[in-house]
Amino acid sequence: MPEALPVVAVLTAPGEDLPPGMDALEGEAELRHATDGASLRAVLPGTRVLCVTDFRTDALGEAWDAADSLEWIHATSAGVDAILTPTVRASNLPVTNARGVFDRPIAEFVLGHIIAFCKDFRGNLELQQRHEWRHRDTERVEGRRVLVVGAGAIGRQIARLCRAVGLEVDGMGRSARPGDEDFGAIHAQSELHQRLPGYDFVVVAAPLTPATEGLFDAAAFAAMAPEARFINIGRGPIVRTDDLVAALREGRIAGAALDVFEEEPLPSDHPLWDLPNTHLSAHMAGDVIGWRRSLSEQFIDNFRRWRRGDPLRNLVDKEQGFVPSS
Amino acid sequence: MPEALPVVAVLTAPGEDLPPGMDALEGEAELRHATDGASLRAVLPGTRVLCVTDFRTDALGEAWDAADSLEWIHATSAGVDAILTPTVRASNLPVTNARGVFDRPIAEFVLGHIIAFCKDFRGNLELQQRHEWRHRDTERVEGRRVLVVGAGAIGRQIARLCRAVGLEVDGMGRSARPGDEDFGAIHAQSELHQRLPGYDFVVVAAPLTPATEGLFDAAAFAAMAPEARFINIGRGPIVRTDDLVAALREGRIAGAALDVFEEEPLPSDHPLWDLPNTHLSAHMAGDVIGWRRSLSEQFIDNFRRWRRGDPLRNLVDKEQGFVPSS
Repeated sequence: MPEALPVVAVLTAPGEDLPPGMDALEGEAELRHATDGASLRAVLPGTRVLCVTDFRTDALGEAWDAADSLEWIHATSAGVDAILTPTVRASNLPVTNARGVFDRPIAEFVLGHIIAFCKDFRGNLELQQRHEWRHRDTERVEGRRVLVVGAGAIGRQIARLCRAVGLEVDGMGRSARPGDEDFGAIHAQSELHQRLPGYDFVVVAAPLTPATEGLFDAAAFAAMAPEARFINIGRGPIVRTDDLVAALREGRIAGAALDVFEEEPLPSDHPLWDLPNTHLSAHMAGDVIGWRRSLSEQFIDNFRRWRRGDPLRNLVDKEQGFVPSS
Repeated sequence: MPEALPVVAVLTAPGEDLPPGMDALEGEAELRHATDGASLRAVLPGTRVLCVTDFRTDALGEAWDAADSLEWIHATSAGVDAILTPTVRASNLPVTNARGVFDRPIAEFVLGHIIAFCKDFRGNLELQQRHEWRHRDTERVEGRRVLVVGAGAIGRQIARLCRAVGLEVDGMGRSARPGDEDFGAIHAQSELHQRLPGYDFVVVAAPLTPATEGLFDAAAFAAMAPEARFINIGRGPIVRTDDLVAALREGRIAGAALDVFEEEPLPSDHPLWDLPNTHLSAHMAGDVIGWRRSLSEQFIDNFRRWRRGDPLRNLVDKEQGFVPSS
C-alpha cells in the first residue's frame, strides 16, 4: 500500500478559488480548500500543512482546535500579522512567508509615486480633465532624501531602486546600524521623531507588529517636514488614519500615497478619498500580473523542501513577526 | 575712455521679463530686452550677442535685416528649431543651446511615466475620484523594452535612468551603431518601422529637423505593438497628431504621455484631452524649480568664454540641427 499523501489545506479569502499553479501539487499532496473559519475547521483534521493566501483572515483563531496534525503554516503574503495569533506564536509550528515575491514590484511602485509627486502627475491629470494648459515648475528627483521605515527585504529593494536614480536613502530598523550597500545609514526606530524632519519622503515598508502598530501618529506627522510626503505600502494599522487625515487636511505634510489601510476595503465614505495630494490604491502595490502563480510556485518549492526534510525557506521569527535578514 | 560693453539682446516670449540671473551680466554687457519681432528689430542694431529664451519664437525672420553686428546666437532651450531660420542656417553665425540643463529632469519625467503606465496610476486616481476600491493586477517594470528615438544628451540620460531600474533600452539615431554604456543597441532611423514592434515603450527625445518632422505618422503607430505606449518629450511636429489621436482612439497603441504638441498651448477643444490612457502636460518635462536661473547661468558662462575668446560650449551643428555627441 502506497504511503498516504500529506494533506495540504489552502485557506483563501471567502469566495476565492484555489490560486493558479496549485494544481502542480497533484500526486504530491492531498489538497483541501477552505474559505473561512467554519470550512477551515472542517478541513483541518489530518492536515499537515496549512497555506494561507488571505492576509486579512481571522479564521485561524476560530478553527484552531481542529488542528490535530499541523506541522507548518505558510503565508503567501509578506505580512504574517493575521497568522501570528497568540496560539500560533506560542506553538512550535514553523511559519514561513512570501518574502521576495513582492519586493521588486513594490519598489517600482514606490519609486513611481516619488517621481509622480515630484513631477505633479496628479496636477497634470486634474488640469487635463479640465482641458486646461498650465505650465508649472516641478521638482527634481535627484538628491531628494528618503527614509524607509523597515529595513527588511522590501525596504532594501526600495532603497536599491531609489538610489539607482539618484535619491539619497536611509533606513530605519529596530536598532541603529552602520550604512551598507543599500542604505546610507540605518537609524533606530526609537529615534523616529528626531530623524523624520530630515526627509522629503517617508516610506513605510515595515511589518505590522506590536512595535510598529500606530507608529505613525499625530506626533510623527508633526515631526515630518511640511513639504514631505508619506508613502505606506506596509500595513494600514502602522498608521493612525485619523491623525494622517488631519495632517493632510491641515497641510502639515505635503501629500501621501497609500496602498494599505486600517480598514480594507477603504469605506466609500472615508475622508481619505477626497484629500488633496493623496494617492490611494487598493492594496495592490506588489501584485503584478502572474503574482498569484508566483506565490504558488514559491509555496510548492518550500513544500518539496519540507517533504525532503530540507530546511524551509523564509522562516518567520515569530517573536519579531518577520523573516530576519540573513 | 573705457571700451564699450558688448551689447547682448535677450529675446523672451511676449509679456515675459528678463529671466532671473541675467542681472549677473551687469558691468560685463549692455543688456537689451525684446519680446517680439518689432522690439527685436529695434534692439538688434549694434547687438553682438542674441540670447533667445522663447523656443517658439518666429521673431527672428521678421527682425533679421536689422542685425548689423551679430556674432553669436544662444538658445536657452534644447531644441533650436525656431532659431534655425534659412538665413541663420546659411550664415556663419555660431548657434549654441542649453544642452545639459534639461537632461536629468526630463529623464526623471519619462521614467515616472513609464512606471505610472505599468502601475496604472491614472486608473488609481480615476477610481479614487469615484471612491471606488478595485484591486487590479498591474505590470512589472523590470525587463520591459524601451526604444529612445534620439540618441543625444537627453536620450542618453533617459537610457541611463531606465537601465538603472532594470528596463532594457535601445536607442535610435541617424545611423546604426553598436551598443554602448547607455544603449543596448542603436538602430538607424531608416529602420524605424521594422524596429518599432519590439518595444513596450517608445520615447521621442529627438530634435525637430527635416529628418524627424512627421516621423510618427499612421504607419509608425501601426507598426508599434498594440500594448505599447508612446512618450513624446521632444517636439510636437515630430508627431502627426491626427494619426496619434486615431491610433489611441482605435486602441492600436495602449497609451501616450505627451509633453509637447504641434500646437502649443494645446487648444481647449482638442480631442487629445479626453483620450483614454493619455497623459498630457504643458511642455514642462524639463522645467524643475530654478530652471530659468540655471539657463541664465549656462548662458553667462558661455558669454564669458566668448569674451575671453575661448571656444563656445554646446555649438549646434546647423546642418543637423543639434549639438553632435562629443
